[in-house]
Amino acid sequence: MSEFFTVQTPKDAHRLFSEHFHPRVRTERIPTADALDRILAEALTSPQDLPEFARSTVDGYAVNAVDTYGASGGLPAFLTVIGEVPMGATSSLELGSGEAVLIHTGGALPAGATAVVMVEETQRIDDAAIEVLKPVAEGENVIQIGEDIRRGDLLMTAGRPLRPQDIGGLLALGITEVSVAQPPRVAVVSSGDEVVPPDQPTTPGQIRDINSYSLAALIRRAGGEPILYGIVPDRREALLAAMQKAHHEADIVVLSAGSSVSYRDLSVDIIEELGAPGVLVHGLSVKPGKPTILAVCDGVPVFGLPGNPVSAMVIFDLVVTPAIRACLGASAPAHTRIQARLARNVASATGREDYVQVRIEARDGESWAVPVFGKSNLIYTLVNADGVIQIPLDSGGIREGAWVTVTLH
Amino acid sequence: MSEFFTVQTPKDAHRLFSEHFHPRVRTERIPTADALDRILAEALTSPQDLPEFARSTVDGYAVNAVDTYGASGGLPAFLTVIGEVPMGATSSLELGSGEAVLIHTGGALPAGATAVVMVEETQRIDDAAIEVLKPVAEGENVIQIGEDIRRGDLLMTAGRPLRPQDIGGLLALGITEVSVAQPPRVAVVSSGDEVVPPDQPTTPGQIRDINSYSLAALIRRAGGEPILYGIVPDRREALLAAMQKAHHEADIVVLSAGSSVSYRDLSVDIIEELGAPGVLVHGLSVKPGKPTILAVCDGVPVFGLPGNPVSAMVIFDLVVTPAIRACLGASAPAHTRIQARLARNVASATGREDYVQVRIEARDGESWAVPVFGKSNLIYTLVNADGVIQIPLDSGGIREGAWVTVTLH
Repeated sequence: MSEFFTVQTPKDAHRLFSEHFHPRVRTERIPTADALDRILAEALTSPQDLPEFARSTVDGYAVNAVDTYGASGGLPAFLTVIGEVPMGATSSLELGSGEAVLIHTGGALPAGATAVVMVEETQRIDDAAIEVLKPVAEGENVIQIGEDIRRGDLLMTAGRPLRPQDIGGLLALGITEVSVAQPPRVAVVSSGDEVVPPDQPTTPGQIRDINSYSLAALIRRAGGEPILYGIVPDRREALLAAMQKAHHEADIVVLSAGSSVSYRDLSVDIIEELGAPGVLVHGLSVKPGKPTILAVCDGVPVFGLPGNPVSAMVIFDLVVTPAIRACLGASAPAHTRIQARLARNVASATGREDYVQVRIEARDGESWAVPVFGKSNLIYTLVNADGVIQIPLDSGGIREGAWVTVTLH
Repeated sequence: MSEFFTVQTPKDAHRLFSEHFHPRVRTERIPTADALDRILAEALTSPQDLPEFARSTVDGYAVNAVDTYGASGGLPAFLTVIGEVPMGATSSLELGSGEAVLIHTGGALPAGATAVVMVEETQRIDDAAIEVLKPVAEGENVIQIGEDIRRGDLLMTAGRPLRPQDIGGLLALGITEVSVAQPPRVAVVSSGDEVVPPDQPTTPGQIRDINSYSLAALIRRAGGEPILYGIVPDRREALLAAMQKAHHEADIVVLSAGSSVSYRDLSVDIIEELGAPGVLVHGLSVKPGKPTILAVCDGVPVFGLPGNPVSAMVIFDLVVTPAIRACLGASAPAHTRIQARLARNVASATGREDYVQVRIEARDGESWAVPVFGKSNLIYTLVNADGVIQIPLDSGGIREGAWVTVTLH
């Protein structure tokens, strides 16, 4: 199948890739307290009501609401205080008519009480009596049993990224362990005779390897575990050996080779050897990033990214990030998307999807997306951008002032 | 100073707190490749031009542009190919008039060349000659020396959170180590006789400790390092001892005590003992979260959060997150903010700032913020929300359809 280069639209490429990529989510059980930003791998239902007992939301007196009806400052309701609710336990007290019990915020409502009067709306007469200055309705200042969550309620579905409040919500129910997706291992193989490690001095003609590290960071951001294979010499045997090792050890393989035609041909050739069906797409109708390779080899997705770092990062988010999210079973994208208005006309060529870097500026409470100029293969174009917008295929461009979706970096 | 409870506006409270809190950013030098999401603690300028040599952006032939002027399919320019540029090195070749050199994407432009003709726009005659079918301008298909970044250019300022492309941009220049802010240590002390660890069964009247863990997760999100001090019994001596230890060991102390008046008084009392000036604010005009304590004790910020978990989390983001970001010297807030339209009228009481949980829904390409109903002390209100909006003090509320800023969770 090698040596062809039929440019495909991202949509067609995605469809073809999806037909051959069948991600399996690997799971592990971990303490809920350690599960921040992990992807939940199971649907969870509540084992109990929350709260399990009716609780006061204020400091005051637990009462039978009917005893306060008609009460006012001029004509207060007079109630006998028969005790106090201890924190962390239930009271053995049971309210009779005309009786009240001192209760604190979070305290369990005693038997016979139907509401709580705030302490500010009472007046203490003596140790055993209060005046209530305002009526309360039944249930006022009380959280009822199961008002937060009922036993059996669906709490969260699989695929959810866990946030601080989600961890709190699970621990509140005693769910101290959860099944989450294991981060897929993503191999990064760099190649190119002009590429040297970043800690080495360069001689004219050489550039530093930035793709290994910026791609590793993108892999972490997406929820994967990067494995770097270093810079492999641009010879068939060396590159094939490195790619076979990566294909054997990782769940996803990313090859960042040189950008020239000969490198691309070599990449296609080597990927074909890793397994069937092999290369599915060679060439995407996007800018930047046309020389992209999508492959599935014996069930493992293999991506050949363009060599220039800006194209590599744009294409990574377009094709590799979704594959990582699929391995995690994640229901939400890895990046936040916001709406903004485009700050100037952006033209686009026919037959191509354009990805334009933008800076976000606030103007009169509205967010504006300001295109960041500079050739697309300059890394500082990306450094100076807050996000990226997509100019759809065959749209001809987008007009100034139009609302666009910005995927934040 | 204890026992007072003068509710202040968040603005006044912030001003008072800022007068007494003078954060010092502690820094450490780490490998740039490990600095994802860390906060840069130094301004960086470029030690070199990037690129350091003029590079080709395409596969083709390096030429002197004037030799191609007027070229067309019908009347091509005839050039002699005198050799090939090796990758990763410079060529010793020097172009004379009417000469061309084979060059690959990323290759260094040889002496005498001013542009590159794409291979698609040439025709090979024999091993030593090509026809150029289209003219190129000077500099076409070339990245000039310093076109990405010039030596001495300001790259990034202190306070920037480092993203994948920032790591790439630094490594491209050989900046393999950076000075970043050390995460401030943030102590979490929980208290309350009704609170039990989440892995223990509850008896009626008891609730599980969720604040320690949801606050720890929020601390991590903000860039701090949480230190949990467990659940401390609600007695003066035990709580004072735990708070003194926390105050000694941490950069910021967070106390999550019970919500009742007696706990608040005890909290104020104990915080006062930790150092001068002590409690600055006791009571914020916000909902939820009125019973909030802001203090600075011997230079260490100490926060008393409301006991109920929803209020605790809302107030944490309002007061503790900014303190953590200040200790990091971070120039950007910890949370992403987006614009959305409010999906229904939200009323608000005078003299109070309201924080309303919302779910984000996309409707016709616009984001809408849909308020999540449920009492504000129910944790699943937060679990079911995507973010929070602020109803400003004395605004009376916000009308359906108005644009609001949503701080995403």
